[in-house]
Amino acid sequence: VSHPESANRRRYVILSEGVFGKVNSKTAMGVIRYGRDTVVAVLDSTQAGRNVSDFMGDAYDIPVFATLTEALPLHPTALLLGTAPQGGKIPPPWRATILDAIQNGLDVISGLHEFVSDDAEFAAAAAVHGVELVDHRRPPARNEVSAGRLHEPGKHVILTVGTDCAIGKMSVALELRKAAVQAGLPAVFVATGQTGIMIEGWGAAVDRLISDFTQGTVEWLVEEAEKQGDWIFVEGQGSIDHPAYSSVTLGLIHGATPHGMVLVHEPTRTEHHGWEGRPGAALHAVPEMIRMHEAIAGLVAPSRVVAIALNTTALPEGQARAEIARVAAETGLPVDDPVRFGAERLMDGIRTQFEGAESR
Amino acid sequence: VSHPESANRRRYVILSEGVFGKVNSKTAMGVIRYGRDTVVAVLDSTQAGRNVSDFMGDAYDIPVFATLTEALPLHPTALLLGTAPQGGKIPPPWRATILDAIQNGLDVISGLHEFVSDDAEFAAAAAVHGVELVDHRRPPARNEVSAGRLHEPGKHVILTVGTDCAIGKMSVALELRKAAVQAGLPAVFVATGQTGIMIEGWGAAVDRLISDFTQGTVEWLVEEAEKQGDWIFVEGQGSIDHPAYSSVTLGLIHGATPHGMVLVHEPTRTEHHGWEGRPGAALHAVPEMIRMHEAIAGLVAPSRVVAIALNTTALPEGQARAEIARVAAETGLPVDDPVRFGAERLMDGIRTQFEGAESR
Repeated sequence: VSHPESANRRRYVILSEGVFGKVNSKTAMGVIRYGRDTVVAVLDSTQAGRNVSDFMGDAYDIPVFATLTEALPLHPTALLLGTAPQGGKIPPPWRATILDAIQNGLDVISGLHEFVSDDAEFAAAAAVHGVELVDHRRPPARNEVSAGRLHEPGKHVILTVGTDCAIGKMSVALELRKAAVQAGLPAVFVATGQTGIMIEGWGAAVDRLISDFTQGTVEWLVEEAEKQGDWIFVEGQGSIDHPAYSSVTLGLIHGATPHGMVLVHEPTRTEHHGWEGRPGAALHAVPEMIRMHEAIAGLVAPSRVVAIALNTTALPEGQARAEIARVAAETGLPVDDPVRFGAERLMDGIRTQFEGAESR
Repeated sequence: VSHPESANRRRYVILSEGVFGKVNSKTAMGVIRYGRDTVVAVLDSTQAGRNVSDFMGDAYDIPVFATLTEALPLHPTALLLGTAPQGGKIPPPWRATILDAIQNGLDVISGLHEFVSDDAEFAAAAAVHGVELVDHRRPPARNEVSAGRLHEPGKHVILTVGTDCAIGKMSVALELRKAAVQAGLPAVFVATGQTGIMIEGWGAAVDRLISDFTQGTVEWLVEEAEKQGDWIFVEGQGSIDHPAYSSVTLGLIHGATPHGMVLVHEPTRTEHHGWEGRPGAALHAVPEMIRMHEAIAGLVAPSRVVAIALNTTALPEGQARAEIARVAAETGLPVDDPVRFGAERLMDGIRTQFEGAESR
């Protein structure tokens, strides 16, 4: 947990070997799209010679190289490990690149479960070359169980939830925060995963916490955010029906006790990402997930799903707009793809519900 | 994780300062009731001069002392820290007693979050006096996310769940295992908390795991148990509606993917233990909890509540039996207090449901 003011801006090379442009490059793409540091190059030997703009649009003119050596003329100051492999171990093929970066004076920024700063070889090399090893997933020292804190009056806490992991919950929270700020509202983003922390400069990786302290940590993250603004957008994790990650998801729901939830869904996805063909792989329908989220949240504190954010990346624009209209008719809620079409309409729809409730 | 064969039997003094006989002495009382090691004395200055039999019945003739010195003539070999304070820190007033034990050649057995073996002063003293510091809550090194393993054919996995924490889920699982063994069934108890591990000699403290590995760890604990028997009784933790602990509970439900759940309820309790008066304190009714557990488990794998275990400690026998009959009529399920009246009837009722399902 550190605040952005304390960090000097960096110039990143992002290691995204073998996955750039795919779902597993969500850390890389998140930092490129939302981060405040400069990204000078991406490393992925399978996409070498291409440009990030081929994947993310013309606003992102960043070369993709096979090796760190090619990126050095662009004066990077840090190597950012830009994928989140399941289980979070340091992939052995990355070790040579990490050592190369350290020997060339680059800091190493990681969100893996296995900490680069605890690795004897990396730590020794970093000491010799005077560089920093940053582990954004390292849990905060405050090991606290939940205390049952109530939100301050006038605060609106919104948690993004989803029908799957790796579906856009962080992006939706960031887009809603942006729309709220543009509407003149004091809005705060609460990072709960390593990519969010890399982007925002503070937060805690909830999936790395000692499980007994999950709700307690989310509770004080929200408390910190309430000191900074009135509209609090909490980044969700996993999904309540994900066989491997649902406990982390529930820790966020019962720890944040959100006034409202925004449900993120990818209309073409039918099975949990990375879990295809295994027991419990099938995604649940949006109406069922609305009911289940409200029932499960309500075991601790009442909460409603206040909007649906569709991730329509896989659909042409016409189909995307048709699907948005269909889900809006089906659910009676504000529905949009805030990453593709902007979050203004979703934010307006959410705000109307809260202000309507407050004036009653 | 270690198996009982590897442990020499110990003679315990149990430190239960200020809480013996109360809900917070559940570790002490669990080890006395179910453990295989000898308990020579309990330390609680507020109950000094009394006997464990005053609290737990004539079978337990164990003196309660104010100080360790009084217990030394009974030749203890280990001091067991017998309460589980919320947050799991080493209470400062215990330090002198722990050091005294070490200096008198006793091992120290702990289930706290804060590890006694990581404490510099205790570790130095233990090295000098040649004693062992055992932290049963230390997580296993296998950091694995769930793989979606299916149960082996012919296995019956039963998870105890509850309407609250500290309500008897471990005791119910142990009593069911005992009844199953007495009925000639190959049955196994899976310990998921420090007390269970102290009793059984293996397991993992699920509330101490890195949250990302909760389901994965529960999954391989069940896999180990399936190698040892056909009827697997998994100790539950917390409750699905507990504001602080629900994420751990859900990790057990989705990690064990039990065929059946036994819901433990204390009929006189109206608010969550240790949470009285705070938001989300109210317990939910048994029928609602049956529905919610089946719905939440069913997000990953179908499961049914197959029995209700009432903790009737607070009721005279006549009222206890009336409440058992009332809940049986209300739910249509086998209902009993297996700690008070034996688990045979519950086990018969559970077995009938599984065998009925198998013969169809």
